[in-house]
Amino acid sequence: MCGIFAYLNYQVPRTRKEIFETLVKGLQRLEYRGYDSAGIAVDGSKKTETVSNSICLIKKKGKVKALDEELHKKESMDLEEELDTHFGIAHTRWATHGEPSALNSHPHRSDNNNEFVVIHNGIITNYKELKKYLNSKGYEFESETDTEVIPKLIKYIYDNREKDYVSFSTLVERVIQQLEGAFALVFKSRYYPGEAVATRRGSPLLIGVRSEFEQSTEPIPIQYNNGVIQDSVQGKNGHNRPDPSCALTSVGDSKAVEYYFASDASAIIEHTNKVLYLEDDDIAAVIKGKLSLHRMSRLAGENSVRAIQTLQIELQQIMKGSFEAFMQKEIFEQPESVFNTMRGRICFDTNTVILGGLNDHMKEIKRCRRLILIGCGTSFHAAVATRQILEELTELPVMVELASDFLDRNTPVFRDDVCFFISQSGETADSLMALRYCKERGALTVGITNTVGSSISRETDCGVHINAGPEIGVASTKAYTSQFVSLIMFGLMTSEDRLSLQKRRLEIMNGLRMLPDLIKEVLCLDDQIKSIADELYQQRSLLVMGRGFNYATCLEGALKIKEITYMHSEGILAGELKHGPLALIDKHMPVIMIIMRDACYTKCQNALQQVTARAGRPIILCCKGDHEIIQNAYKTLQLPQTVDCLQGILSVIPLQLLSFHLAVLRGYDVDCPRNLAKSVTVE
Amino acid sequence: MCGIFAYLNYQVPRTRKEIFETLVKGLQRLEYRGYDSAGIAVDGSKKTETVSNSICLIKKKGKVKALDEELHKKESMDLEEELDTHFGIAHTRWATHGEPSALNSHPHRSDNNNEFVVIHNGIITNYKELKKYLNSKGYEFESETDTEVIPKLIKYIYDNREKDYVSFSTLVERVIQQLEGAFALVFKSRYYPGEAVATRRGSPLLIGVRSEFEQSTEPIPIQYNNGVIQDSVQGKNGHNRPDPSCALTSVGDSKAVEYYFASDASAIIEHTNKVLYLEDDDIAAVIKGKLSLHRMSRLAGENSVRAIQTLQIELQQIMKGSFEAFMQKEIFEQPESVFNTMRGRICFDTNTVILGGLNDHMKEIKRCRRLILIGCGTSFHAAVATRQILEELTELPVMVELASDFLDRNTPVFRDDVCFFISQSGETADSLMALRYCKERGALTVGITNTVGSSISRETDCGVHINAGPEIGVASTKAYTSQFVSLIMFGLMTSEDRLSLQKRRLEIMNGLRMLPDLIKEVLCLDDQIKSIADELYQQRSLLVMGRGFNYATCLEGALKIKEITYMHSEGILAGELKHGPLALIDKHMPVIMIIMRDACYTKCQNALQQVTARAGRPIILCCKGDHEIIQNAYKTLQLPQTVDCLQGILSVIPLQLLSFHLAVLRGYDVDCPRNLAKSVTVE
Repeated sequence: MCGIFAYLNYQVPRTRKEIFETLVKGLQRLEYRGYDSAGIAVDGSKKTETVSNSICLIKKKGKVKALDEELHKKESMDLEEELDTHFGIAHTRWATHGEPSALNSHPHRSDNNNEFVVIHNGIITNYKELKKYLNSKGYEFESETDTEVIPKLIKYIYDNREKDYVSFSTLVERVIQQLEGAFALVFKSRYYPGEAVATRRGSPLLIGVRSEFEQSTEPIPIQYNNGVIQDSVQGKNGHNRPDPSCALTSVGDSKAVEYYFASDASAIIEHTNKVLYLEDDDIAAVIKGKLSLHRMSRLAGENSVRAIQTLQIELQQIMKGSFEAFMQKEIFEQPESVFNTMRGRICFDTNTVILGGLNDHMKEIKRCRRLILIGCGTSFHAAVATRQILEELTELPVMVELASDFLDRNTPVFRDDVCFFISQSGETADSLMALRYCKERGALTVGITNTVGSSISRETDCGVHINAGPEIGVASTKAYTSQFVSLIMFGLMTSEDRLSLQKRRLEIMNGLRMLPDLIKEVLCLDDQIKSIADELYQQRSLLVMGRGFNYATCLEGALKIKEITYMHSEGILAGELKHGPLALIDKHMPVIMIIMRDACYTKCQNALQQVTARAGRPIILCCKGDHEIIQNAYKTLQLPQTVDCLQGILSVIPLQLLSFHLAVLRGYDVDCPRNLAKSVTVE
Repeated sequence: MCGIFAYLNYQVPRTRKEIFETLVKGLQRLEYRGYDSAGIAVDGSKKTETVSNSICLIKKKGKVKALDEELHKKESMDLEEELDTHFGIAHTRWATHGEPSALNSHPHRSDNNNEFVVIHNGIITNYKELKKYLNSKGYEFESETDTEVIPKLIKYIYDNREKDYVSFSTLVERVIQQLEGAFALVFKSRYYPGEAVATRRGSPLLIGVRSEFEQSTEPIPIQYNNGVIQDSVQGKNGHNRPDPSCALTSVGDSKAVEYYFASDASAIIEHTNKVLYLEDDDIAAVIKGKLSLHRMSRLAGENSVRAIQTLQIELQQIMKGSFEAFMQKEIFEQPESVFNTMRGRICFDTNTVILGGLNDHMKEIKRCRRLILIGCGTSFHAAVATRQILEELTELPVMVELASDFLDRNTPVFRDDVCFFISQSGETADSLMALRYCKERGALTVGITNTVGSSISRETDCGVHINAGPEIGVASTKAYTSQFVSLIMFGLMTSEDRLSLQKRRLEIMNGLRMLPDLIKEVLCLDDQIKSIADELYQQRSLLVMGRGFNYATCLEGALKIKEITYMHSEGILAGELKHGPLALIDKHMPVIMIIMRDACYTKCQNALQQVTARAGRPIILCCKGDHEIIQNAYKTLQLPQTVDCLQGILSVIPLQLLSFHLAVLRGYDVDCPRNLAKSVTVE
């Protein structure tokens, strides 16, 4: 859940100031992944250093901005010094072990001399055992983190090497053999100046390449050690470099080149659109400007090259524009993002839906016995929201599962199950592990992600790209509505040949066609919603109630409010009111109720009666012109009506806006809620 | 959700004071069903009345105690007057339509002269239409309730009768033909003094019979009108009584007899153990001390008699004893109640489990494709708690469903599904409707209830009586642990012949054998828990976190706290923390975490790290002697360790106790939480 960024310039002269700016900008793009502290490691100034190739560490608690200020304060660093070749690493942290502090933040180091420094995203689960061992060998730890075992371990291996020369990538290969858990790692060392080594397992990592030379975009072959760690060329003395020619094929050829290592593409896109995604246990090394890839051994059927891909996102897509916050911008983008999700996939003339990514697997999907929708947080709510209509359209049992609970339970999964993995980033650790669990058991796996090239999109058998555009706000908004629409489209696609469902399908298709316009209409309620926020923002608790097709909206609305306003909000199934939650109701408890004109209308009115009989004064989301509700309600928000199964898309938007306004009024940073990060790449 | 009680003494002289006492005592036994207002209707004093056979109504807002005080205040009523034959009705209300007030409370009346008075438990869903019609006929309404249409309607039918004489039961038969929704009703009228008519549809109602005469316990045949409403004997003039001989067979024979009408057996058991359960649309009438049963027509296969049954519960089982509250008593009863659930069903020598009620259906159950566990509130949590072990032992997919959501979604159910309905009372409206829904679709239905003769136990194909003894506290405690054990026993019974599971089964059996002693050990923590309550009781919010086998404990613990302390507590899956709820954590937010030594131990520790890294100071429920947790924790509650799948039984008890102490410290009535009722017999 941390953000990793590193920058290597080879024969491209840059001042130290420029290098700082590149590193800081990279971190800022990744800040949604965590922002409780940040740090960088760069080469020490040649002019002032007392030892050769010294490494300088600068770390600061707080957001990246605090680090940036710190960097420009450093008087000992010569900002104007020009560096022909340099490798700098940077990290923005989201605390999992040890509280946010400069000491606990990355890069972590091997010792007081900064011989090896590392940045890490993930969790090392066996760090206690490793720490105990290294302690016993006399290595002293300075932080409370799991990460710190890594620089200590690499130094231990280096200190105990059998030959004088051992390559940097070999050291890393030995380190990761000892690690359990999830990681993306980038290493820098004073013994290997100008060299970079990066690797991953479970956590995402990609490398951007910028060069004027054509060959820099050719696929890179993988060098296998066949299970034996050895150096292809033995160094002749001391810390000599190996002959670069041993890297059989590699990007660059002692020519000017720049490399960007990052947790995701948003930090790279402004520099280059040529990227390489690392696979689990790949080790990437840059020596003398050449990028090579290493693996222990080749698995059967494994691709022996990694292609350099071209990113399709545009820089302006990730800029905030005129909005106060990315989240606000993303809420208001929903007419377009929902349209983009449908673009080219629905033919309204022939009433057909084609999801290209599923086409080859439709037969298998239609034959299955059960659909299982798996996700975390907001993505799970998208599953809850569409469960009923999928049950109706597919006539199959549909289960919805929180990925972590699904794994905890060792849930039985069978060969004739179809499992969906819903994740905006496509990197959510629990969902990814659930995916691997289901694959092992022979189920067909389907990804619903917003990120091309993400682990989930790569590892599933097939999938749907929701095409909502980059989502930067930590609180997910437009990804939710696009996941929602994608799952509906899946339902429509599977039911194309069921005659009895044609009327229903047509109704939903028409609803989808109108959806972007209706969303615009809902967004016009913004001022009304703001005034409701004015009334509520000093409250501590907030209940959101509804049932049927709008139950998911209650869960998702309450989650949004939790995430960014820190109010204790809870989504409550209106049908469960009398089984407990009604005890909370009195005239002081703020309540929002969703009562739409659908099959649950009368039941929701019963719930409303129960709440008002206890002096509750709920704010009601209802259909435009529903006078029966409006006349008797304390306050209403009137939404346009659509098909029952799409209403949840319209009803969630006022709650997204409400949470935004509440957070602003309470004085919080909407895009950077405390304690949270956008993409949860650790368990 | 209201409580109905009525008492008819025929040729058994009672003073008015004795009658009041009987009615009030009956209501007090039913008070857990609702207690926002209460009322009675009795005959007016012969000495003072200005019209013949007048009826006197006394209603009071508040608990039954308030009504009792009111009754003894009435100076106009001669308490010492002896009544040879009398019929009195009484009602304790739980508001669903209209706020709690004397005016909205029952009995409701037809007009200012109290010609007809009615007590009702349930909801009339078409009351608006009926009210509109009766309004148009000049009938004026005085309350906001749905119930009031019933006395108005019976008077309308009476006023517009075609013949001079029409029997009381015929009037009622015509009334219920017009009603939609759920009801149990008891009628009294000045035109039919000493007569009683009772009926039900959806809501429970039973009749206790006390007489010295043997024949009073013979089965009662049903009289069918074959769809035509007619009086078997036409009255000769005015309001003459019909010849009692027309009631072909009936209890009593102009001999001394007493009848008790009640929503459940706890109000009857101290008077008699001979009871008759009414079925939907049965009409019971008492004329001149004779009980007769009437139905419109006979359905194919229907039993044409109703047996008088003998109740097995003892009066002392429903007394509070030395405890402050029924809930507290029931928490401390759990070593026994859990033992009673297992009694005679587990043979520890042969490692076999026999649930008699399921024996005949085991083949069918083992052949099924899927188990669906359905419940509301606490009963739903029992399903969540046992889902994983049932998946493991049955190797079947197990779905858990909230009954209301299950119905809202029109969930697909198939002939080869086995559906469980879990309900303490066996009368929970949503669960009962879900049961009927599943039966229609051909699934095998299994009841898990605590109430013999309840609707769910009668309408399911087979079932398990959890045998926890009567539960009076509105917040369910011992029923939860007994439901839990019952479902575990079901899992053990189905897996008897699976060789690969024998080790696991043995481990669980041993765990069950030890369980009552371990529960006693947990109950010894009461003082420690009290001191935690002292620390927490002024808080507004409380989060309860855990995962795996203990997730259900979080949900159930939070529900208990919601129900009786009115604190906003929420159960949170620890695996979902990073997907939102972590934003709530700071040093002020009270958190309870459950971290047991099971497969989720490391993951739970990760969650703990995340919480403490945000300055949270959780109170931790952990295993006895887990020094790793204890050393670093702010405060712990140490529980004995048992098999992972049984641990949830031990971990829920501290939270039951905590909620009890919190409620007492906050000054609330533990057994009568505001807004709630024990058994939710309406949607």
